[in-house]
Amino acid sequence: MSGDLAVVAKDKEASSKGTMQTQITTDPPRGTRDFPPEDMRMRTWLFDKFREVSRLFAFEEVDFPMVESEDLYTRKAGEEIVGQLYNFEDKGGRKVALRPELTPSLARLVLQKGRAQSFPLKWFAIGQCWRYERMTRGRRREHYQWNMDIIGVPGVEAEAELLSAIVTFFTKLNITSDDVGIKVSNRKVLQAVLEKYDIQPDSFAAVCVIVDKLDKLPREEIESELDKAGVPSVAIEGILQALTLQSFDDLEALIGAESGAVAELKQLFALAEGYGIQDWLRFDASVVRGLAYYTGTVFEAFDKEKKLRAICGGGRYDRLLSTYGGQDTPACGFGFGDAVIVELLKEKKLLRAFPHEVDDVVMALDDSLKIPAAGIASRLRSTGRVVELVIEKGKKMKWVFKHCETLKAKRLVLLGTTEWKEGKVLVKDLNLREQTVKTVDELIASS
Amino acid sequence: MSGDLAVVAKDKEASSKGTMQTQITTDPPRGTRDFPPEDMRMRTWLFDKFREVSRLFAFEEVDFPMVESEDLYTRKAGEEIVGQLYNFEDKGGRKVALRPELTPSLARLVLQKGRAQSFPLKWFAIGQCWRYERMTRGRRREHYQWNMDIIGVPGVEAEAELLSAIVTFFTKLNITSDDVGIKVSNRKVLQAVLEKYDIQPDSFAAVCVIVDKLDKLPREEIESELDKAGVPSVAIEGILQALTLQSFDDLEALIGAESGAVAELKQLFALAEGYGIQDWLRFDASVVRGLAYYTGTVFEAFDKEKKLRAICGGGRYDRLLSTYGGQDTPACGFGFGDAVIVELLKEKKLLRAFPHEVDDVVMALDDSLKIPAAGIASRLRSTGRVVELVIEKGKKMKWVFKHCETLKAKRLVLLGTTEWKEGKVLVKDLNLREQTVKTVDELIASS
Repeated sequence: MSGDLAVVAKDKEASSKGTMQTQITTDPPRGTRDFPPEDMRMRTWLFDKFREVSRLFAFEEVDFPMVESEDLYTRKAGEEIVGQLYNFEDKGGRKVALRPELTPSLARLVLQKGRAQSFPLKWFAIGQCWRYERMTRGRRREHYQWNMDIIGVPGVEAEAELLSAIVTFFTKLNITSDDVGIKVSNRKVLQAVLEKYDIQPDSFAAVCVIVDKLDKLPREEIESELDKAGVPSVAIEGILQALTLQSFDDLEALIGAESGAVAELKQLFALAEGYGIQDWLRFDASVVRGLAYYTGTVFEAFDKEKKLRAICGGGRYDRLLSTYGGQDTPACGFGFGDAVIVELLKEKKLLRAFPHEVDDVVMALDDSLKIPAAGIASRLRSTGRVVELVIEKGKKMKWVFKHCETLKAKRLVLLGTTEWKEGKVLVKDLNLREQTVKTVDELIASS
Repeated sequence: MSGDLAVVAKDKEASSKGTMQTQITTDPPRGTRDFPPEDMRMRTWLFDKFREVSRLFAFEEVDFPMVESEDLYTRKAGEEIVGQLYNFEDKGGRKVALRPELTPSLARLVLQKGRAQSFPLKWFAIGQCWRYERMTRGRRREHYQWNMDIIGVPGVEAEAELLSAIVTFFTKLNITSDDVGIKVSNRKVLQAVLEKYDIQPDSFAAVCVIVDKLDKLPREEIESELDKAGVPSVAIEGILQALTLQSFDDLEALIGAESGAVAELKQLFALAEGYGIQDWLRFDASVVRGLAYYTGTVFEAFDKEKKLRAICGGGRYDRLLSTYGGQDTPACGFGFGDAVIVELLKEKKLLRAFPHEVDDVVMALDDSLKIPAAGIASRLRSTGRVVELVIEKGKKMKWVFKHCETLKAKRLVLLGTTEWKEGKVLVKDLNLREQTVKTVDELIASS
C-alpha cells in the first residue's frame, strides 16, 4: 500500500456509486470535534497538567455519567446553561440530558454516598460537557472541563486552596500574573445590597444570573430584566452601583465593615498572601458568575489584554446539596474549560509542538525476515522502548529514512539477509549518524 | 465541620420538605456508572496500561465525538450492536446516536483526512460506548473500550501486531496463557464454504452475524434464522460443520490448501512465533464475531475456565471505508472493553488495592497559623510533593493521625505557636516514627 493511498470520499464531492451502501458525511456532527493524533496529543498534554496539579493538592479524581436525568438541572433562575440544555427523551420515555456541567453530578454522588465518606472531600474531574443552542453559528456544542471541588469546609481556606491550584496550573504553563488575573468577589455583597432594599431572598439567584450578563448585554436590557424580575428601580440603581466596587474601603462604606462578605473577602486575600498568589488576585464586585447556585465567594480568571472570554470560574455553593434534598453542606469548586486556555496559549505563543516520537524503527530488508523482525521489535518493546515495526511490504530505503525523520526516531534497526545469516542486525544511530552491526543481544543490551 | 457530617438525603427514604426545591434520585441513570475515587483509581490504572501498551507499539491516540450521526451505524445485517443503538432525535430534528463502538468514527475520520495522511495509520482510542436495550435487567448501557487499529496494511503482519499488543497487555497485568487464550479464524473460511454452495455474496455478512450467536442460542434457532436468510438446508449443514474445525489439516481438507484463508492463517501463526506469542493462539473456526464488517482475520480472547464472556475481539475490515463512499482500504483492529477484564482480574486475584496516597500532611495547630501553613504547603508542592493541607478548623490530633494513616502519608508537618515563633515546624516521619524540629528551608531541602 502506497504512502499516498488515495481515499476519494470527500464530504460534498463524492458521487454515489452502485457499490456504495451509504454516502456519509465525513464531518463530525455539528458543534463536535474529532481528535486526530496531533489534536489528541495537545489534549493529553493539557489534561495531564490538570491531573498533575490536582494531584499536588491531594485531590482525588472522580467521574460521572455523560447522560444524566434532566431534573438534575431543573433550576428556575434563567441561567444560560439550563436554557441551552442538550436534553432529549430516551427510548424508555425518560427525560435525560447530556451533562452541561459536572457540579450537579458531583452533588448527586456526594448525597448518594452519604455517611460512608469522611469529610472534607477534595475531588477533581475532567469531563466532556454539552450544550445545545438552536441557532448555532459555529459555536461548539461540547467542551471538556476540569473541575476541582471541596465538600465539607465552610471557611474560605477552601477557596484559597482552589485559587492556589489555579495559579499553580497557570505557572506550569508559563503563564504569569502579567498575562492573567483572577477577579474575586462574594455573592454576599449582592445579598447585603438586596437586603438593604428589602428584596425577597427568593429572587437572589435570578438577580445574580441577570447582572452576570452586564458585560454581554446593554445596560438598559439588564435594567429591564431586573425590572421584570420585580426589582424596584431604586434598588436596580443600587445594585448596579455596588457592582462597580473595586476596593475594600468602598465596600465597607457600602455594606459595613462588620458584614460577612467583607470578613470573608479579607480573610481570603490574607490567605492568598500565605500562598504567595496575591499578585494574581484583585477584588472586583462585578464578578457574579452565571450559575444560580453560588452563595459566597465567586471568582473568574481573565486575560489581562481582555481579548478572550473568562478562562475559568468558580465559587462557593453551600446550598446546592440541600436543593437536591440533602442537608446544607458547605462546598466550593471551579470549572476550567479546554477552549479559552488554548486560545490564550496560542496568543502568548506558549503552545509548543507535540510531535509523535518513537525510539526505534525496525524493518526487515527482505520479506523473508519479517518473522525475526517481529521478534526483535517484541524484545525491544519489552525493555520499554517505543518501537515502530515496518509491517508494510516492499518499502524503499528512501521512504524509511523519511519515516524515521517524521517519527523523530532515535535508531533504525535493519534486518538484511547477509548480516542475519550471522544473527546480526544493522543499527543506525540517527542522532550520531553512526552505523554499527550488532547481535540481537548486543542491541537489547544497548537499549 | 465534623468528619461524619450527616447527609440525610437517601434515594427512597427522604421526605420532601418545604425548603427543598427538587427531590432527586441520587442514583446515576439506569445502566450508567459513577466513578467515585476508588473506582476511578482502578479505571485510571487500567487505561494507563492500555496507553502504555499502545505507546510501545508506536500507535497514536485519537478520539471522536460521543454523539455521531445515526447513519454511521445503518447496517442491514441484523447485528445486535445496531439493534441496540442508543439513538434519538436532537432538537434540530437530526437523527443521532451515542456511539455504540469506535470503528465507524475512525473510518469516518480517515475518509475526512483523505490524502493529507501518510499510510499506514496506527491509531488507538479509549472511549465510552453506549447501547440501549428496552428490556434491561441490570445490564449496563455504557462501557469503555480500548481500540487499536491499523489502516493501510493488507498483509496479516498488521493482525500480528495487534495480537502481540493484546498479549503484551495481558502480560503487564500478570495474566498468563494458562489463564487466557485467543481463538483465531478468518472469515474467508466461511466465504469459501458459501461459495461451495453457490450462495450470493450479499448474504455473507448476515450469515456471519447469525452463526456468531451459536454459543448463545440453541442450534435449532440458528438453523431457522439461516433458513429465513435464504440459506438452503444442505448449506446450513455445511456451514455449521465448517465452524467446528480446529486444525489446519481439517481446514485444508475442506476448502483446499491453496485457499486464501489457509495461507493467511498460516502466515499469521508463523508471525506469532516470531513475536513469541504462539502459546496464546489457537485456530478455531467457531470464531466469527458479531460485527457485519469483518472480511478476513477474526479473533477473540477468552478465559480458559470459560466463566466469562469474550474479553476482547477484533479482525480485518477491508471494505468498511468503501461502504461509506471511500475506496476499499485495508484495515484491521480490535475492541477491548473495561468490564470483562476486571471480572477476570478479580477471578484470578490479580487486582491490587488502589489507595489514595499523599506525601505530606500539613496542619496548623492554631488557627492563627493557617496563613503560614498555606505557604509551607505551597512550597512543598512546588518541589513536586503531594500535599494534603488541613483546611478545616479545630481538628484534634487524634483525627490527624487517623487521617495520615488513611492517606498513607509519609510525613506530618505541624505548625505550633512555640516552634513557629522561631520559624520552625514539627516534622513527624510517619514511617520511621521519628519527630524532628526543622526550619522551613530545612524541611524543603529534606523533601
